Amino acid sequence: MEASEEKSPLVNGVDTEQLFHTIDLIQSNPEIAKFKFRATNKWVNGTHCRGTVRDFYGALKEDDSRPAVDYDMDEPPVLLGQNKGRNPVEYLLVALSGCLTTSLVAHSSAKGIKIKAVASRYEGDIDLRGFLGLSEDVPVGYQEIRIYFKIDADATEEQKADMVRMAQKYSPVFNTIARSAPVSVHLDNR
Amino acid sequence: MEASEEKSPLVNGVDTEQLFHTIDLIQSNPEIAKFKFRATNKWVNGTHCRGTVRDFYGALKEDDSRPAVDYDMDEPPVLLGQNKGRNPVEYLLVALSGCLTTSLVAHSSAKGIKIKAVASRYEGDIDLRGFLGLSEDVPVGYQEIRIYFKIDADATEEQKADMVRMAQKYSPVFNTIARSAPVSVHLDNR
Repeated sequence: MEASEEKSPLVNGVDTEQLFHTIDLIQSNPEIAKFKFRATNKWVNGTHCRGTVRDFYGALKEDDSRPAVDYDMDEPPVLLGQNKGRNPVEYLLVALSGCLTTSLVAHSSAKGIKIKAVASRYEGDIDLRGFLGLSEDVPVGYQEIRIYFKIDADATEEQKADMVRMAQKYSPVFNTIARSAPVSVHLDNR
Repeated sequence: MEASEEKSPLVNGVDTEQLFHTIDLIQSNPEIAKFKFRATNKWVNGTHCRGTVRDFYGALKEDDSRPAVDYDMDEPPVLLGQNKGRNPVEYLLVALSGCLTTSLVAHSSAKGIKIKAVASRYEGDIDLRGFLGLSEDVPVGYQEIRIYFKIDADATEEQKADMVRMAQKYSPVFNTIARSAPVSVHLDNR
């Protein structure tokens, strides 16, 4: 990291030269931009299950060079679990937090804005009457998610507001949640 | 677990007596069902950031009894990162996998269906021209997510199809994605 920082145009640790090169490649061949991300899951017991992430497809090829990483999920005792992992709706907030942060940093870096620190906090409301099937009027999913960003950067308040707008505009997880995505669930016969 | 299995009505490791008791409590006081889940995030460098889950509010009280758990997120080199964690859109699939699995198991257990194994796989399509702002016509979020469930249970094929339908109907993460949720993002002045 230190050595490459001297020779390559890193802004906030983002290699903007590679970023602009990637954009050029995609403009000449949009197929490069088509990615497929994947996960698998195995139920363990009760409310405890384990998600696994390994391979993905992108930039015209399969990538299975990364080792598999497991994520234990479980509920707290008040929700019938044993805290063997954090729960799936908490993982959703983690995913959202990572995606907004990365989008904010990548797009700010492309604009040459130097960032010192970015911190954010997330809170979402869920009424479990939806999950339990006790009321048709209550949404099953998050009713609302509120997010607060603290940014320390060489930027005016107006620029910081713009950084937060860019994060929302370009974050895949934010847009998957705020605009929805089609999800199809099948029984697997293979 | 072994000891309690003898005295309590565990179905697939789910304490269905506690489940039905919780439902009774919620029907007499719906405030018990209102939960707030939370996460925080700190940017580390480049595309690397760290999400943290700790406290939540639910069943009429704050719960900060769990230790904080950190989740590193980063991109693979092809997406300008260094693989210091799996990426946010992969975490989204993990969240979805945990929530559908838990919903399937909880609702099947309430119906008394004995489950031996549940495994599932997830694949979602993202066209990075959305994230990069190269095309207004390309969705920024997942274009489509496909899920395949393998269920080994004392159940007919029709019952298994119903288990998969219940999972979708009652999963908070599935419904947050498939129906969307309002997300507000602010600059934090506190």
